Amino acid sequence: MSTETISFSAADLERFVVQVFESQGFSSEDASQSASVLLESDLRGIDSHGVARLSGYVRLIKNGRINPKPKITITKSKGVNFTVDADGAIGLVSAPWAMKEVEQRTQEMGAGFAAIGNSNHFGIAGYHAMKALNFNAMGIAMTNASPLVSVSGGKERLLGTNPIAVAIPANQQKPFVLDMATSTAANGKLQIASRKEEEIPIGWTLDKDGLDSKNPNILKDQGSLLPLGSMDDMGKHKGYGLSSWVDIFSGVLSGANFGPWVPPFVAFLDPLENLPGKGLGHFVGAWAVDGFMEYEEFTNRMDQWIVRFKESTPLVAGKPVMVHGEPEMKMVAERKKEGIPVHIKVVEDLEALGKSLSITL
Amino acid sequence: MSTETISFSAADLERFVVQVFESQGFSSEDASQSASVLLESDLRGIDSHGVARLSGYVRLIKNGRINPKPKITITKSKGVNFTVDADGAIGLVSAPWAMKEVEQRTQEMGAGFAAIGNSNHFGIAGYHAMKALNFNAMGIAMTNASPLVSVSGGKERLLGTNPIAVAIPANQQKPFVLDMATSTAANGKLQIASRKEEEIPIGWTLDKDGLDSKNPNILKDQGSLLPLGSMDDMGKHKGYGLSSWVDIFSGVLSGANFGPWVPPFVAFLDPLENLPGKGLGHFVGAWAVDGFMEYEEFTNRMDQWIVRFKESTPLVAGKPVMVHGEPEMKMVAERKKEGIPVHIKVVEDLEALGKSLSITL
Repeated sequence: MSTETISFSAADLERFVVQVFESQGFSSEDASQSASVLLESDLRGIDSHGVARLSGYVRLIKNGRINPKPKITITKSKGVNFTVDADGAIGLVSAPWAMKEVEQRTQEMGAGFAAIGNSNHFGIAGYHAMKALNFNAMGIAMTNASPLVSVSGGKERLLGTNPIAVAIPANQQKPFVLDMATSTAANGKLQIASRKEEEIPIGWTLDKDGLDSKNPNILKDQGSLLPLGSMDDMGKHKGYGLSSWVDIFSGVLSGANFGPWVPPFVAFLDPLENLPGKGLGHFVGAWAVDGFMEYEEFTNRMDQWIVRFKESTPLVAGKPVMVHGEPEMKMVAERKKEGIPVHIKVVEDLEALGKSLSITL
Repeated sequence: MSTETISFSAADLERFVVQVFESQGFSSEDASQSASVLLESDLRGIDSHGVARLSGYVRLIKNGRINPKPKITITKSKGVNFTVDADGAIGLVSAPWAMKEVEQRTQEMGAGFAAIGNSNHFGIAGYHAMKALNFNAMGIAMTNASPLVSVSGGKERLLGTNPIAVAIPANQQKPFVLDMATSTAANGKLQIASRKEEEIPIGWTLDKDGLDSKNPNILKDQGSLLPLGSMDDMGKHKGYGLSSWVDIFSGVLSGANFGPWVPPFVAFLDPLENLPGKGLGHFVGAWAVDGFMEYEEFTNRMDQWIVRFKESTPLVAGKPVMVHGEPEMKMVAERKKEGIPVHIKVVEDLEALGKSLSITL
């Protein structure tokens, strides 16, 4: 914990977040659900997607882009698949809503998949995928997001950082949890470099003319993030392809906007005109383990997989190989015990928000 | 086409491949199916996975690692999910077998997913995912493979190039087909550099001590390929995570081998001892479009997506942005018309194989 942060207990932050969402017209259930996603993000160490986003969400509610009292409905359904119209809900509410239906279908038919349209940002993808672990299933979650990423051979910002999350249960070991943006670097890393007034590596961004940039503020000057792979001979087309997949499943399939038409997260930027859909989109789902293999046999095999990787020869002696989900699990344990260090600028932002709403941080 | 290649019609190559597989005891149906996958690979320009692999497959049949007369069965099933024991079949046969069952379940329940164990290499992942396009569905296919890839923080070869393919239909436009190894570079690219006696870029491989290597032959000296992302600050952990996901769905879930225990493709290397499973594994499946959205509406939206990307501002004037699947489709059209250029070394290999089996190329 540096001097740049102030530590809060998860419980204190959660109470504050719940009160803020309730003050904006959320039902207490929706406020709790939303707070749960944001706090899970902070506990896992993904500081960019936790309480740091709260005032941004409030601004979207205030200007009418997020509906605080949505009527979420299933608009199409066949077998394990269904489409959700989130009615402008915050994604922190619509994705868990859909995952409840996914759970039911998974128990009945072995799997469930939801394309969620007319929605808003859903926080960390991993939260939604991990829901499947509660019902002995393997979860997947993806979302499209504000266009910031350019593509192979292109200059324009056509895609979001479009994350993919996959959660898979183990037995004695912690679950495998992959939660990754499909861009090389996420926006948060640029912000950290900007704050420290440091250059960023070549391979993270291009400027507006499509040239390599080391400027951490380049996105404010029409620059773009690069897809995972960064350069043509390093597999840039693969990151472009993964991000495309996420955009199609989340946006095209759900009736939401897609590609460059995805509405920006920041409330001060208006969505484009002549949009092809409503809001932004997510895709969430689950596969029951026992459709493939007895649950206990599978989770024992997962333990074997995880242990083999963790015990493999490290690059640097004494720095063991880690498996996806492991660093975040350690962070959760640490932050539950020692509190969540919140950056001073975020604390100031939350305090100002609290003051404007007469809610004490 | 360079002077290093000789051109063949797809029909001539296909006849040869069918005869070779039949000579090894394959039923004519299995031989045709296998040839279909290899030829599709060559037509699409993925020369490393087409007829260039034929003699390798034959060696695996001859030493008993591929069963030419498999009894493929479903060993577990619930709702849309099922597990296949391929009985040592070539993956070129077992994956299409499973995709037929996937098709049925998709028509009945909206989706179908198969974990296929006790199998062998299945050629290009894209072939299997694209099968879903025939029944108005979106397809996915992945497979684990011989361990050649090291992981974040590690020196050992723990994962294969573990590809992911996703196929999504469009209307007037060509389908979206992503088919990517989850390593930065595939083995084939190293072989090309080796043939030309050129160095490879930093970021493709490590040597056996975990140091960056520019040697295209480094895999022969215990070196490793790097996961997509290549370096810690370029998202190496993301490629590692994607490859892990593929390995778990393909190998752990299906009862096949996984991680470093996946049997090597080359017949002269024996599998390890005390294996955790049988053969290698794949995961294939499909989602019906009309569980989410009317097929025509969806494919029209896909057209809009594709056109927007293709018409976006290119980095280099006159070199339009391409969408995944587009270059391969163009290659198929070209090679169907002008023939498939086969590298002279592959031709020699096929001629020697033909001679040993009294089959004329």
